[in-house]
Amino acid sequence: MKRERKLGKGVCVIGAGMPKFGMFNDRDSKDLFAEAFKGCIGSVDKGIDPKDIDAVYVGNATNDFFVHQAHWGPIIADVIGHVPKPITRTEGACASSSQAFREACFAIASGFYDVVLAGGVEEMSKLSTEEATEGLAIFSFPDELKHGFTFPSLYGTRAVSYSEKYGAKWEDLWDLTIKSHNNAALNPKAQFNASIRDIMNTRIERAKAKGQPVPEWRDEKEALGDPSFNPLIAWPMHLFDCCPMSDGASAVLLASEEIAREFTDNPLHVIGLGQGSGTSLSLSEDLCSLEGVVYAAKEAYGMSGLGPEDVDFCEVHDCFSIAEVIATEDLGFFKRGEGYKAQKEGITARDGSKPINTSGGLKCKGHPVGATGTAQIYEIWKQLRGEAGERQIPNPNIRIAGTHNVGGHGGTCTFTLFERR
Amino acid sequence: MKRERKLGKGVCVIGAGMPKFGMFNDRDSKDLFAEAFKGCIGSVDKGIDPKDIDAVYVGNATNDFFVHQAHWGPIIADVIGHVPKPITRTEGACASSSQAFREACFAIASGFYDVVLAGGVEEMSKLSTEEATEGLAIFSFPDELKHGFTFPSLYGTRAVSYSEKYGAKWEDLWDLTIKSHNNAALNPKAQFNASIRDIMNTRIERAKAKGQPVPEWRDEKEALGDPSFNPLIAWPMHLFDCCPMSDGASAVLLASEEIAREFTDNPLHVIGLGQGSGTSLSLSEDLCSLEGVVYAAKEAYGMSGLGPEDVDFCEVHDCFSIAEVIATEDLGFFKRGEGYKAQKEGITARDGSKPINTSGGLKCKGHPVGATGTAQIYEIWKQLRGEAGERQIPNPNIRIAGTHNVGGHGGTCTFTLFERR
Repeated sequence: MKRERKLGKGVCVIGAGMPKFGMFNDRDSKDLFAEAFKGCIGSVDKGIDPKDIDAVYVGNATNDFFVHQAHWGPIIADVIGHVPKPITRTEGACASSSQAFREACFAIASGFYDVVLAGGVEEMSKLSTEEATEGLAIFSFPDELKHGFTFPSLYGTRAVSYSEKYGAKWEDLWDLTIKSHNNAALNPKAQFNASIRDIMNTRIERAKAKGQPVPEWRDEKEALGDPSFNPLIAWPMHLFDCCPMSDGASAVLLASEEIAREFTDNPLHVIGLGQGSGTSLSLSEDLCSLEGVVYAAKEAYGMSGLGPEDVDFCEVHDCFSIAEVIATEDLGFFKRGEGYKAQKEGITARDGSKPINTSGGLKCKGHPVGATGTAQIYEIWKQLRGEAGERQIPNPNIRIAGTHNVGGHGGTCTFTLFERR
Repeated sequence: MKRERKLGKGVCVIGAGMPKFGMFNDRDSKDLFAEAFKGCIGSVDKGIDPKDIDAVYVGNATNDFFVHQAHWGPIIADVIGHVPKPITRTEGACASSSQAFREACFAIASGFYDVVLAGGVEEMSKLSTEEATEGLAIFSFPDELKHGFTFPSLYGTRAVSYSEKYGAKWEDLWDLTIKSHNNAALNPKAQFNASIRDIMNTRIERAKAKGQPVPEWRDEKEALGDPSFNPLIAWPMHLFDCCPMSDGASAVLLASEEIAREFTDNPLHVIGLGQGSGTSLSLSEDLCSLEGVVYAAKEAYGMSGLGPEDVDFCEVHDCFSIAEVIATEDLGFFKRGEGYKAQKEGITARDGSKPINTSGGLKCKGHPVGATGTAQIYEIWKQLRGEAGERQIPNPNIRIAGTHNVGGHGGTCTFTLFERR
């Protein structure tokens, strides 16, 4: 980068909405986005007429072949009454709606539009988990697809490499999984709205009711070490290291800084934008880092004038437990090889000094891939406004938040910084 | 629209490249984009180091399921040596790379980036025409897909409605087809680099060589009226009313106005940006107009301060012959119901007062859907610089050009205006 990236015009988030993530037989992408949109419009403190929305960006990755329907831009425009105004779909695999958000920022900062909606939607439950896992593999690189990699195995490879290099063991990731579930248990919009302890209790009750042998786990870690509770998926990624297949949608509303206070007295200012790209495993120097994230962080920190130490809390892309560890190191929150120790020490817990994934993360909140980016923004919007309910970060001084989103296993990487003023 | 759309910062095109469109067994999307990129970089008058490219946008529509590989952003980034810098894929069906171009403009006008590449790529020949036609249908609206519409039938329906309303006959579209082929015969990059007369002669020679009955067509129109030459596809769209399946790529390079002259003394200034959306046939008021195009035109004319009369020539989206007629009316070049007469009167010919599709258009140049938008910009770049060779518009005073691109049959619509100063 020759110079620091700056926007010529400030941009703010003035609203955010999302329905609960999950697997829904009775709702499709149109229904889910309509709910996200309604929630988003309803969240604008001083109200807004949807007619004031100049343009829309929507992220989606898999609907083309998962539900055999492409060209979602105009379908979504129709659902929210936006026709004939412009809508653009972005696709960066699991980072699709972070790209939508970024384009919305550019469209406003360019001076062309005043009010822009950014969101995402994905409908993954209409296929079996096996079909969907195979379908998602086309978002990896051609050489990986050719050799039969799926995402659990791609991240498993990264985890093995991390373990080799830094000595972390599979068991070291359990603290992180327990933390994600503890947060998700307090998040009514999470697909897995339950702690590991809750899930253990459900299994015990079920065994009792069926007259089966009752598991005797002394604590969460003993359950996570039991293959009947936590089976292997792709070494060393076990079931509780992996995010689920999900249906979901999310949407956030943006306005130029100049007019944001017409809509709310508490806008979130977009203070850092960053995006980078990466290559396949075979071309990567270091499997324990995503070069696109490092680049995105450089852009975002550069624009904000801040560093990792200034970020009060962050939603990171934890499609697999190891991804959260690598993310927190790539973003500079922890030293190389030390990210996996952070949760052990309680640093990334809700009441720690650097809360990570207070929503429960992709692992527990769910990961409808195209909807994840703006759903992360929904979480930090709620937290920075003190509206996160039971999962509210107890520190009342939080002011700067980040969202980190990864498409593929590093092909597309975004990092965005927000400030409450 | 509450106010006129303006960019806070000027944006220029400083280079453009595309390989010949066609159907290629020996080259894939990566190869084609690499060629477009090389041509684009090579076209920059004063040279440019690819390292100076800050970001890339790439349009693609069908590769996810046509070649079973998604997430093309990072693949393209790798091909052109752009990793770890950002790349974003846009998808608006056949308007995908016009959206890429538009986002590139916003990214520069926002002040964030200085030099951005926009392009598109599509690889359609790996499927049979039947499979591809069915595959493309998922870019129509859900109600249309459900009832078995394909694109020839969707545009056929619009043509029937146009005929009902304005009295045009199928035969009235022949002048337009002849004109497109006349232009394409002079375009070495066109998939069908041949006039109707050339194609007739080839058929006659082939019949003679095989000892078959030799067709006795007195002129092009007699050939176009002969079902053995021009069979019906979906009434009233016949073979020569329809664009082909194509493989291809195209790329253009953009820079902020402030620095454009470091790269060329003849940049093209982006003076009008417009985009709109539309709904399915069943929800449309008027099948003889695309409401998204009307909206896009309003935005683009509004930004430029110009009107249709100021546009010296234009590339319009003629996936089917009727689409060119409707486009020229929606853009305000001709009155409603009179667009089909324009070519009859020679107005839209290369030497007419409003040349349309000097490249041969989608019909003859080919239509690798994701590559079409920036390929249209390649054409007006060559024309406005006087570098269009044999197909150069004879009027030396051309200064303002337009590009009009449609995704689906009107779901996504763009219109962009350029000026040579």
